[in-house]
Amino acid sequence: MVKGVLLDISGVIYEGDRALPGAADAVARLRDAGLPLRFLSNSTRSPRRRLVDKLTAMGVSFDPAELFTPAGAVCRWLEETGHRGHFLIHPDLAEDFETAPQQGPKAVVLGDAGPFFTYEALNAAFRVLAGGAPFLALAVNRVFRDADGALSLDAGAFVHALEYASGVQAQVFGKPAPGFFGAAAADMGLTLGEVAMVGDDAEADVAGALSAGCAAAYLVRTGKYRAGDEATATPAPTATVDDLAAAVECILG
Amino acid sequence: MVKGVLLDISGVIYEGDRALPGAADAVARLRDAGLPLRFLSNSTRSPRRRLVDKLTAMGVSFDPAELFTPAGAVCRWLEETGHRGHFLIHPDLAEDFETAPQQGPKAVVLGDAGPFFTYEALNAAFRVLAGGAPFLALAVNRVFRDADGALSLDAGAFVHALEYASGVQAQVFGKPAPGFFGAAAADMGLTLGEVAMVGDDAEADVAGALSAGCAAAYLVRTGKYRAGDEATATPAPTATVDDLAAAVECILG
Repeated sequence: MVKGVLLDISGVIYEGDRALPGAADAVARLRDAGLPLRFLSNSTRSPRRRLVDKLTAMGVSFDPAELFTPAGAVCRWLEETGHRGHFLIHPDLAEDFETAPQQGPKAVVLGDAGPFFTYEALNAAFRVLAGGAPFLALAVNRVFRDADGALSLDAGAFVHALEYASGVQAQVFGKPAPGFFGAAAADMGLTLGEVAMVGDDAEADVAGALSAGCAAAYLVRTGKYRAGDEATATPAPTATVDDLAAAVECILG
Repeated sequence: MVKGVLLDISGVIYEGDRALPGAADAVARLRDAGLPLRFLSNSTRSPRRRLVDKLTAMGVSFDPAELFTPAGAVCRWLEETGHRGHFLIHPDLAEDFETAPQQGPKAVVLGDAGPFFTYEALNAAFRVLAGGAPFLALAVNRVFRDADGALSLDAGAFVHALEYASGVQAQVFGKPAPGFFGAAAADMGLTLGEVAMVGDDAEADVAGALSAGCAAAYLVRTGKYRAGDEATATPAPTATVDDLAAAVECILG
């Protein structure tokens, strides 16, 4: 029996602007069972504030302090190392970096900039990397389920583009970085071996959590899930289930 | 003694719009020595016609039939396999695909689109690849020496971005594809073991040519060359020399 649960948000609790049926109730069931929860999002197109608003509007019971985003982890790194960011991010995310240092050597910070991934912006970031700056990736997801229902390019494609051209390896801050899962578990006073993860991304959520040391990781067939995803990820999911409600069923046993 | 020579163009004969000193004379020396030549360009931002015009304006003695470009190789592939292109290329290159098939299943064709590498265009190409289309890369160069003198992102970064997101491996048509060097050698009635290559790209030109089987490959310290490039490429250059004139000196012995 696990002692805490980590939940992905996009594709698990909602898809685009639509709450997934039964998701808010499934979160409530975990609360009722007395399990502490943390929400781990790799969505870097919108600020933390908007995630809070969406979860609230969808009737999910949570405390904003339970929400972990890669931007928060990068802010801490910038402060601790005294770097200022050269940001290649969606403008909507800028508010999550308002408190980041304005001085110091540059570090390239890349998130899912979406339509703001222009050649000019990518080339400017490449030149900063070629000049020796460290490379911080908020996430390296391949794809996400877009508003039109089809899959679209996520930040990972652009991280790989800049890594290939510059020869500089990115440090990843969101899932599947072990430190991202670890910080959320530690915030519940637990070790990774005591928590379960639920997500729709077989790589970043599921294989990432298991590689980091989580006790279990459930892949849901909502969000970006495509038939066969469970066969492509290593380690394989503890179980592949229809949705968050089914995952909660497995967790509560 | 080699029996024919393959020459890279950008960074070897000219940089941007500037002829490199002594390059046209070096080409003439090879002609005088009776060596057949072929010109192999990976520059895919401008059409074949513009390369011909530039070489002519710079006083280089050549026949347009001696010019090999990846676009020509891709056109032949599209015709032979009955595919039509979904093009992610610079609009200036479109004229090189005028004779390509208009019917048949789609194949994604990627060149150095420069400022036309928008998120929208990359995502559209990604979706065609995710639908099962083959992926044809005109080139996979990491960087090129831009008009402002600094290095800029070349097509390779974007090839890797789409490969990572889609899981579809690109077939490369320009250098370092062995078939590209081989077709140019065969056009001179020679095998790769009878020809030397000269280029400024330690990977695509030099290591590529040697891996393909060329007898020798010279790296010039013009164009995109940066100190130490020769140490990063495997196989290493036959010799690293100041410019094309020095490479010709080596070739003629």
